[in-house]
Amino acid sequence: MSRANLSTQTCTVARSVALVGDEWTFMIIRELFLGNNRFGDFLSQTGMSSHLLSQRLKKLETEGVIQRKPYSERPPRYEYHLTAMGRDLWPAVIALKQWGDRWLSDGEVPVEIIHKGCGHITQPQVTCSECGEPMAAHDSEPHLSQSILAERQTARTHS
Amino acid sequence: MSRANLSTQTCTVARSVALVGDEWTFMIIRELFLGNNRFGDFLSQTGMSSHLLSQRLKKLETEGVIQRKPYSERPPRYEYHLTAMGRDLWPAVIALKQWGDRWLSDGEVPVEIIHKGCGHITQPQVTCSECGEPMAAHDSEPHLSQSILAERQTARTHS
Repeated sequence: MSRANLSTQTCTVARSVALVGDEWTFMIIRELFLGNNRFGDFLSQTGMSSHLLSQRLKKLETEGVIQRKPYSERPPRYEYHLTAMGRDLWPAVIALKQWGDRWLSDGEVPVEIIHKGCGHITQPQVTCSECGEPMAAHDSEPHLSQSILAERQTARTHS
Repeated sequence: MSRANLSTQTCTVARSVALVGDEWTFMIIRELFLGNNRFGDFLSQTGMSSHLLSQRLKKLETEGVIQRKPYSERPPRYEYHLTAMGRDLWPAVIALKQWGDRWLSDGEVPVEIIHKGCGHITQPQVTCSECGEPMAAHDSEPHLSQSILAERQTARTHS
């Protein structure tokens, strides 16, 4: 199965990672959340090649995660901005940041998050929409739909 | 800059994606959260090659995300289990699932999450640790430490 096939799985984790699940795409999205919007800034801050960067930006634009906006007419130059779809990746980026802070850092937390609403430095938490309590892996149980169960059964018997 | 160099950036998003930021690693972690622990199950449910799978499992074990446990002595056979570090990736996987549910699904939510604590189907939310309110990108402001600011300044001037 190729990466392309992941995008047609019923599983929406597979579909998400087929679109944004590579290190360079995450680096571009990090830059956008830090307020950088230009090709040259992506290049210098991520260290990726301009070929890879062009490729990733094109894909993200085609899929609706970012949009191009002109900032100069002569010569024609564009900035890149997150769409609503792109901004909605914030919880995924924050989750990876917090995981890195906890398990991979040298001690210092390099980026603190301020909650504008209350003005405090915050450690964003995952909580249950129904009871409001914090949630983690051990509190959760996945409930699979009939269609994904059927797809997984087929994968099992055809392997 | 190579993927390897991302693991030495001060930014903990970069460090996280250098370790788990590829589609196949996410697929293995998805399977582990769904309760699959064996090589053959990973193979059939992700569709990846056994070469890639071996490589990714070895890396995840070396880095402490999963651990091997024997389940048969003759022949020697191993299961793979998430460590505490691995289970702590749950918010990242859930965030990608929810993003896919919202932006990439065919309508049906393929996997519902039940919160064992209250027994309800839940839509896990990101909330502020200080005031308890739900948070999204527009409510948050990154505050960068001196060391990451210096690193980013160097990247800018050396590009």
